[in-house]
Amino acid sequence: MAYGGVEAGGTKWVLAIGDGPDDVRETTTFPTTTPEETLARTAAFFGQNGGIAALGVGSFGPIDALRSSPTWGHITTTPKPGWADTDVAGALAEALDVPVAFDTDVNAAALGEQRWGAAIGLDTFCYITIGTGIGGGGMSNGRLMHGLLHPEYGHMRIPHDRDLDPFDGVCPYHGDCFEGLAAGGAIRERWGKKAEDLTDSAVWDLEAHYVALGLVNVICTLSPQRIILGGGVPKQPTLLPLVREQVRTLLAGYIDAEELDSGLDEFIVAPGLGDRSGVLGAIELARTAIR
Amino acid sequence: MAYGGVEAGGTKWVLAIGDGPDDVRETTTFPTTTPEETLARTAAFFGQNGGIAALGVGSFGPIDALRSSPTWGHITTTPKPGWADTDVAGALAEALDVPVAFDTDVNAAALGEQRWGAAIGLDTFCYITIGTGIGGGGMSNGRLMHGLLHPEYGHMRIPHDRDLDPFDGVCPYHGDCFEGLAAGGAIRERWGKKAEDLTDSAVWDLEAHYVALGLVNVICTLSPQRIILGGGVPKQPTLLPLVREQVRTLLAGYIDAEELDSGLDEFIVAPGLGDRSGVLGAIELARTAIR
Repeated sequence: MAYGGVEAGGTKWVLAIGDGPDDVRETTTFPTTTPEETLARTAAFFGQNGGIAALGVGSFGPIDALRSSPTWGHITTTPKPGWADTDVAGALAEALDVPVAFDTDVNAAALGEQRWGAAIGLDTFCYITIGTGIGGGGMSNGRLMHGLLHPEYGHMRIPHDRDLDPFDGVCPYHGDCFEGLAAGGAIRERWGKKAEDLTDSAVWDLEAHYVALGLVNVICTLSPQRIILGGGVPKQPTLLPLVREQVRTLLAGYIDAEELDSGLDEFIVAPGLGDRSGVLGAIELARTAIR
Repeated sequence: MAYGGVEAGGTKWVLAIGDGPDDVRETTTFPTTTPEETLARTAAFFGQNGGIAALGVGSFGPIDALRSSPTWGHITTTPKPGWADTDVAGALAEALDVPVAFDTDVNAAALGEQRWGAAIGLDTFCYITIGTGIGGGGMSNGRLMHGLLHPEYGHMRIPHDRDLDPFDGVCPYHGDCFEGLAAGGAIRERWGKKAEDLTDSAVWDLEAHYVALGLVNVICTLSPQRIILGGGVPKQPTLLPLVREQVRTLLAGYIDAEELDSGLDEFIVAPGLGDRSGVLGAIELARTAIR
């Protein structure tokens, strides 16, 4: 069976046709332009490549993922020019005449990781991406997390010692929230260079500190069995070991679980599917549109 | 049908026999002493009052609530003298020869609130108690939250401006975590009086600020449909309105939901069952031991 998957990002869209990591029959990537052009290009790709049984879309947000809502399938209040209140799922369902499943990009990635990657067999875990911004999703009790809307991990408040780091943060809403201090955009603004061009240990010690604070808050609220850290920033090879060390220090032994002590290497991990968690998760999401 | 419910607190245990808020046939409260004495007294109460079909226990923690674990039903690493590694559920199951369901006190309270109180019809919500300490539980996707262990909301890290509040915090593990800054124990230590004896607006403005920071982090990680604030501290009548106001200010409109703006009075609420959420929730928990 051929499913279609869309990782609908604010910068680029990644599309694939297939049935899993070992069966990707066609794939394409193009920049996110206007909604009209981007959606038309997406519909054309799936239409021209033999058709699909169902489509899954993991989208940048905020989105409306509540099936019973009149605006289900829409990107809602995004500041991205032209994209607020865009009906993504409805437009693609109409153009392709197939069932469409719609969720956040990070929930799609979490689903992909649970099916084929680093979260196989887990029912409560998080997928957090640290790129230009910070987003997060995951599962609780074996189901993707929604609730009132969907998680927005990036906008948690974390301690910020201005004597050590006088940087104000870059979040246009909150200044020094988690994303405002620790996302790739914050790193570039604070140090004047992109994350991938920075190797100074002061940069990565500070970054690990903020990431660890964010993860500690996720651990205390959700009690995940594992945290998967995706996105560009955690590709810096020194970051994950530093984050694990800081998480251990910050928790200070309060939560008595081997996973949070000697097992931290398997608790905070990179995505098993690398950069493909999102688009492969969207394919898995497509399967749920039929089930 | 008569079920037994136990709200097993670190200070006192509350026991009830019945089938719901309008059908509590017997109830008793006694101080938490040694495990042996407390458990014997509990078994005696249920044995002497006609017996029960099943027992639910909502316990102080940390606990092991994983059915498949060899230490299921135990209070695990509590600093409370004598209580570490105490088999609560097993001892009561053996003494009473009935099915026993075991969860955290806050998850039991959440269950009670969903059945009869302020969370009827919701599938993703939190119950947070602010008393001597801060605990939290709730449901995600219609099921009580567990995961690796269970949530420990009290130990999140939140911003702490030492120029405004030089108090170090009272958490023996983390100093100025959420509980260390905002629980009843922290209020007493910072201001030299118990929360209920303090009326100064500076006290409650600061308390509302910390509580709002904790709630914002819960909102960003779990996306609850409602937050129920139980425990002694939120009984101060000025607190909830101040918390709502600060939550609105801190979110700064980022999450576009009426519930987080004009609907905040119904989003952050007191328990519908008052002080009985825990013990009534334990009765509902007992029902699940049979189902």
